[in-house]
Amino acid sequence: MEPVRVGICGLGTVGSGTFNVLTRNADEIARRAGRPIVIEQVGARRDNAECDLTDIHVTRDIFEVARNPDIDVLVELIGGYDVARELVLEAIRHGKHVVTANKALIAVHGNELFRAAAEQGVIVAFEAAVAGGIPVIKSLREGLGANRIQWLAGIINGTGNYILTHMRDEGRAFDDVLAEAQSLGYAESDPTFDVEGIDAAHKLTILASIAFGVPLQFERAYTEGISRITAEDVEQADQLGYIIKHLGISRRTDEGVELRVHPTLIPKERLLANVHGVKNAIEVMGDAVGPTLYYGAGAGAEPTASAVVADLLDVARDIATHHDYRTPYLAFSGIDHDDQHPPILPMESIVTAYYLRLLAVDRPGVLARVATILAEQGVSIEALTQKEATEGELVPIIILTHRTREANMNEAIRQLESLADVAGSVTRIRVEDLDDA
Amino acid sequence: MEPVRVGICGLGTVGSGTFNVLTRNADEIARRAGRPIVIEQVGARRDNAECDLTDIHVTRDIFEVARNPDIDVLVELIGGYDVARELVLEAIRHGKHVVTANKALIAVHGNELFRAAAEQGVIVAFEAAVAGGIPVIKSLREGLGANRIQWLAGIINGTGNYILTHMRDEGRAFDDVLAEAQSLGYAESDPTFDVEGIDAAHKLTILASIAFGVPLQFERAYTEGISRITAEDVEQADQLGYIIKHLGISRRTDEGVELRVHPTLIPKERLLANVHGVKNAIEVMGDAVGPTLYYGAGAGAEPTASAVVADLLDVARDIATHHDYRTPYLAFSGIDHDDQHPPILPMESIVTAYYLRLLAVDRPGVLARVATILAEQGVSIEALTQKEATEGELVPIIILTHRTREANMNEAIRQLESLADVAGSVTRIRVEDLDDA
Repeated sequence: MEPVRVGICGLGTVGSGTFNVLTRNADEIARRAGRPIVIEQVGARRDNAECDLTDIHVTRDIFEVARNPDIDVLVELIGGYDVARELVLEAIRHGKHVVTANKALIAVHGNELFRAAAEQGVIVAFEAAVAGGIPVIKSLREGLGANRIQWLAGIINGTGNYILTHMRDEGRAFDDVLAEAQSLGYAESDPTFDVEGIDAAHKLTILASIAFGVPLQFERAYTEGISRITAEDVEQADQLGYIIKHLGISRRTDEGVELRVHPTLIPKERLLANVHGVKNAIEVMGDAVGPTLYYGAGAGAEPTASAVVADLLDVARDIATHHDYRTPYLAFSGIDHDDQHPPILPMESIVTAYYLRLLAVDRPGVLARVATILAEQGVSIEALTQKEATEGELVPIIILTHRTREANMNEAIRQLESLADVAGSVTRIRVEDLDDA
Repeated sequence: MEPVRVGICGLGTVGSGTFNVLTRNADEIARRAGRPIVIEQVGARRDNAECDLTDIHVTRDIFEVARNPDIDVLVELIGGYDVARELVLEAIRHGKHVVTANKALIAVHGNELFRAAAEQGVIVAFEAAVAGGIPVIKSLREGLGANRIQWLAGIINGTGNYILTHMRDEGRAFDDVLAEAQSLGYAESDPTFDVEGIDAAHKLTILASIAFGVPLQFERAYTEGISRITAEDVEQADQLGYIIKHLGISRRTDEGVELRVHPTLIPKERLLANVHGVKNAIEVMGDAVGPTLYYGAGAGAEPTASAVVADLLDVARDIATHHDYRTPYLAFSGIDHDDQHPPILPMESIVTAYYLRLLAVDRPGVLARVATILAEQGVSIEALTQKEATEGELVPIIILTHRTREANMNEAIRQLESLADVAGSVTRIRVEDLDDA
């Protein structure tokens, strides 16, 4: 059969990985696709020594690829928002299918791109945008299509998980492990996107839209990073039977959809708690299937390339399908025309359990005052421990609560911090049991 | 758009689960498929109180469903080999697509069914045949399509994993836990298929064909059950840092494809080692993506229904695709016409590490004689422990070896068992590190 002709834009880490996987495994890929997938053109500002570009048509102008009539699919691997958006829109205007690994682009501009693609009858595929090589988009969108999804929770940023893993295993401080991760190339010199949860929120936004059939709404995601997690919190969590993971969580409730990224205590025996280092994993709860989990490398040249090429295989098949019959970009048909979809809930409305750590003056009645404030806000205490005094007169108090509404917890924390007995601010980390049953 | 009209044959556990999921989640499923998926007819020997069959066209003759011109897809959920084969062939002859959850049917008769389906241009889908609701067929066939798969290893029988989990957690004997599993309904009154590994070998046969592009060859799978695992082996493995799991393992080597089901020691820290109870999980190693893992419920009414309905969603989309462009049944095009595929290796040719336990007379020179036999067979010892004498004069000796060829180990065990110092037979359990790196 006719080959599928691909133009790769961007020849950085993922671009070179994609180039090399398509070249090395060309025979295997052709046997799977039923037709060859050939690299027709590469658009990149510079060559990459990792790739043998002999006999490849290379251009420095990526927009030339978008307009090249000999190309069926444009693979966007340049990253970033604005130029990537222009490039993808130009490719769509020229009737090309698009495969992208760009989570920021999809999370922020996806609704616009999908609309443009639907009008042109072309595919926009983005498996590589979430969790690298793990086929979680396909699993959620197709493999679990029978289910009403109840929640999903994922370790979807490898840098953050690397830092938390080493903080716990070695009892080290955040800054210390971050510096090490930077020297090893696991963290960027500006680590904000990773450690403050923005990257995870991009990916969560995409997963939630596919799970619950809502438009992409990155601007409504709650995002909290891991930079304020201390070695002491890691140790206290451990003693309580928990491990701290930086999770993206999305849950469907009667009121709407929760969409939140934050450090989270989860029970040690959960499979997600045993995902270490730079690895990613996503657990999904469906009403028919129950819990399923997807684990693997969330980043890196060839893991991400694996997902890019999987999308190319899908495109190679779907090219022959009338576009009305293809899997919708966000799993559900007509999200655009449907105003009935549930709202993304503001953070004040979410319901979860909490770990609190506060420093109090060691005098009679403190615990009673703390407990009274929580009771008045309707917060039920699961466990409360007063530790030995460590800082002069101050004693650390550790509290685990039952599930309560975030708004109530905000008010309780405001009142706790205004107590004369309590020094400084209250540390608050959310707790999720991720009950498997 | 036109609905997809489904005929369900068989209304047992999975049949009723499928009926109920299709009914309960009809709106969600239609939004995903872009068209309704409706139950046009049910063929079953008797009704099932779990299902509301009001307004459903029920027949006692399942072959009537295969011939019903108003049906697009026949869902085969009757189980077994012969009647199921006849039913599916009849449906194919009448131009119907087929979805089945029948692992035995696919593993044993799949090559014939796929050939018949290819001639008629219809789809045969079987996600539910392996690991229940986990979308592992789709992940392996499509999501990892960029990869040359190196190996896969899976806990693919929930009954066996339930038994091994409770043997380990509670230090109990095999027979004791099996009896409990039977009383709870997790094991059949005749447990042979589950505990002797036949069910796992059916599933492994299917996974291996998809991973490596070889025809289904169930008759060449090596199958060893868990009924001879003792509480002592479980305990010894634990002390060595391992846990015993009943794994299906398939690996591509330069010589061919390994295809084997047997109890296996794996390091405790591996994610697979943390899959407990009736749950299933499959780890897959690809050359580009590295290791990925898929976890969830491997059986049960609605988890299996989840996979059946996922296949129906695929059929609903693929109906509009020319069949040359569809994903091949076993992931690779032209397996049938290709004599070049690698052979399934006989068990004597596989290479793995081993745990050995033997009882020896407590006298000087025994360890030397044991070590000499192993050395003469080229078996390198990683660890050797002589325990305290427990049975009169006899002392247990525990040996962990490095990787070696099974034929050499067979000969070493034959010689060990012929030593006058060694009482009874040698226990041999294979060891796999499943190295993640």
